[in-house]
Amino acid sequence: MVDIATRVYNHKWKIDPIVRSLIDTDFYKLLMCQSVFHNKPDTQVTFSLINRTKSIRLTDLVDEGELREQLDHIRTLRLTRGESTWLRGNTFYGKRQMFQSDFMEWFETLQLPPYHLEKRDGQYELTFEGSWPEVMMWEIPALAVIMELRSRAVMGPMGKFELQVLYARAMTKLWEKVEHLRAHPGLRIADFGTRRRHSFLWQDWCVQAMTEGLGKSFVGTSNCLIAKNRDLEAIGTNAHELPMVYAALAKDDTALAQSPYQVLADWQQEHEGNLRIILPDTYGTKGFLENAPDWLSGWTGIRIDSGDPATAAEVAIDWWKSRGEDPREKLVIFSDGLNEDKIIDLYQQFQGRVKPSFGWGTLLTNDFRGLVPDDALAPFSLVCKAVSAGGQPTVKLSDNPNKAMGPTDQVERYKRVFGVGEQTAQEVVV
Amino acid sequence: MVDIATRVYNHKWKIDPIVRSLIDTDFYKLLMCQSVFHNKPDTQVTFSLINRTKSIRLTDLVDEGELREQLDHIRTLRLTRGESTWLRGNTFYGKRQMFQSDFMEWFETLQLPPYHLEKRDGQYELTFEGSWPEVMMWEIPALAVIMELRSRAVMGPMGKFELQVLYARAMTKLWEKVEHLRAHPGLRIADFGTRRRHSFLWQDWCVQAMTEGLGKSFVGTSNCLIAKNRDLEAIGTNAHELPMVYAALAKDDTALAQSPYQVLADWQQEHEGNLRIILPDTYGTKGFLENAPDWLSGWTGIRIDSGDPATAAEVAIDWWKSRGEDPREKLVIFSDGLNEDKIIDLYQQFQGRVKPSFGWGTLLTNDFRGLVPDDALAPFSLVCKAVSAGGQPTVKLSDNPNKAMGPTDQVERYKRVFGVGEQTAQEVVV
Repeated sequence: MVDIATRVYNHKWKIDPIVRSLIDTDFYKLLMCQSVFHNKPDTQVTFSLINRTKSIRLTDLVDEGELREQLDHIRTLRLTRGESTWLRGNTFYGKRQMFQSDFMEWFETLQLPPYHLEKRDGQYELTFEGSWPEVMMWEIPALAVIMELRSRAVMGPMGKFELQVLYARAMTKLWEKVEHLRAHPGLRIADFGTRRRHSFLWQDWCVQAMTEGLGKSFVGTSNCLIAKNRDLEAIGTNAHELPMVYAALAKDDTALAQSPYQVLADWQQEHEGNLRIILPDTYGTKGFLENAPDWLSGWTGIRIDSGDPATAAEVAIDWWKSRGEDPREKLVIFSDGLNEDKIIDLYQQFQGRVKPSFGWGTLLTNDFRGLVPDDALAPFSLVCKAVSAGGQPTVKLSDNPNKAMGPTDQVERYKRVFGVGEQTAQEVVV
Repeated sequence: MVDIATRVYNHKWKIDPIVRSLIDTDFYKLLMCQSVFHNKPDTQVTFSLINRTKSIRLTDLVDEGELREQLDHIRTLRLTRGESTWLRGNTFYGKRQMFQSDFMEWFETLQLPPYHLEKRDGQYELTFEGSWPEVMMWEIPALAVIMELRSRAVMGPMGKFELQVLYARAMTKLWEKVEHLRAHPGLRIADFGTRRRHSFLWQDWCVQAMTEGLGKSFVGTSNCLIAKNRDLEAIGTNAHELPMVYAALAKDDTALAQSPYQVLADWQQEHEGNLRIILPDTYGTKGFLENAPDWLSGWTGIRIDSGDPATAAEVAIDWWKSRGEDPREKLVIFSDGLNEDKIIDLYQQFQGRVKPSFGWGTLLTNDFRGLVPDDALAPFSLVCKAVSAGGQPTVKLSDNPNKAMGPTDQVERYKRVFGVGEQTAQEVVV
């Protein structure tokens, strides 16, 4: 029996919207947004989409009109009553009312600001300008829209059963990872794959498969909409955009050197427990930890997002020891370029020495490698970053020079101020 | 949106019926049934279910109550108006009105006769007694019900996503076969997999995937319901039950020796063209062909269903040449224990020398080998055969002694009458 009303209703959609909710975004964006809303609400920023995989010419694959329709649709979205209720009423990391009333009232009226879109050299130049709390909310939906339009473009010419087999193969591939991972019941893994997911429905499937397949080893998802719909824990803390913007706003080199700690001082006022996670690599992990104020060593843990993860974890362990902390009580969240083998290796290397945890992104929600000719569905390295703040360019160094961003003279200045020496380059897969 | 009415309606079913239509059966059963209805309508027969794979204890897996519910449900089925219209109006092998009015009128009122069910030594003894045209219609639904109840039993404890991945793996497996086969555009393959399918929905999926994946290399399905629903050609001719029953009814050795030719003489009166296919192996291919009347050499082709298929095809080629026929004009239908590699091998060996064609059964619609622990979903060798007719036991020799059936003294008598010497045993996979 066809439900006639459903069918007629579906035909009324002019497009098949990729992002259908303002909370189809990462949980840490909301946490950061509240922090920014309280501490730097009027900062003017520019965010820009950057495809680091130049071999993929997005303008050849994705129609500009379709992209505009998707982005325009996102600008029609508003926080719904149910979403607001969920954010206001839910417990996150055991804490109630993590989102305060002033922030929720602002969020309930939020419309994403206008975007600017141009084609250049086979890529889309997609930029967002305006006040930081508004502009930052574009990051995840902009990435998700481009990733999914690219998937749709590649799958367009495929037949119905060819498509079904494609997804059958992708499911099989994910399930084999689940089967490997569940041999290690002590693992703690969260989905961090919203931004570079193959599609929304596929991320939703992956999260449900992980829930069934991994049991309590699967601790939740960074995606708020999926966490809400599937009754899971929303997971996340903070990201590089905070230190990058704080640094750009610094008036001189002394202020610049202090800016990453100012970020965390502001953060500490709002958050405790599992949300007190250090992200140390924006301007080099080693220097950041050496120069860190003592109160930081008392934080719950650290997130390792660039460079060689084992090396960075050893640096953190040594640092905690030097500050009189017991590393075995510390959370170490690995979140860079993970796949199941790397997760198991790191787990076996660090369990017992720290509390290892894993934020698994692109190769959880977009591992279509090897499934179509020319690997046309393989994930690629797309980011959407703050490129300027308060009229100044932003800079990121990270522990991997291949992830560095910003004008050359500013990169040199930052390296000098933060005492970053020789770095080892790591291939950026995704 | 949930369609409330659909959901309420679904809850009204007491069981999830496996066979929901009298034409969810092989096309050749209907052709043979019409022939029997015209030539031997009053012959009393017994059909019996035989599990040749004794290691699978069906009574441990399948609940007797559930089995009875499914069989009882089949006895409630009647030919629907739409099914009757399709059979009356369709063109089969280019011929209209293949089913005559007297047969259709009988079929429209058919209810399958009672069954007899007992447990013995871990197996179900399931027998059907009565007039041949009625009893013979039990064969396919009885097999399909047991096969699918066994699948359901094995899958009962599995989780939702575990199940989805199981089917994802089975889909991937079938699609890899499709990808191998479509490298040979001259192939002609039909689905013969109804009787030992994993389930009805899975057979339906396989047929649709073959339709999309193989294009004109996929020539149709033996399943009438799927042929009707999916607008495909219904495929099939005749089977061993005709010579087995005719032989059992023979009054003496002379009549016995002639009985296989009497079957085909009766068949020839009703059918022409693609339906004039010789099935020579019931009592040994070699002797059957040597002693065949001349008019048989003019038939369209031969079906090879036991023994070494290449050897049997060579025997047929030599026989046609000895009778002045051109083998290149003859259809050779391979239908025994096929998988894609064997199909491709036989195709490459015989294309150009004959017109090779393939009736692909169990390993098309039930290849779940290797997909669950202990291979508990691997197909097994279940048959439902005429075991007696007119009060006499039936006998089958075939070209593979492992497929022989019947009381020892009768097997010896048949071997003598049909001049069957030494035979090579072949493993019966399915």
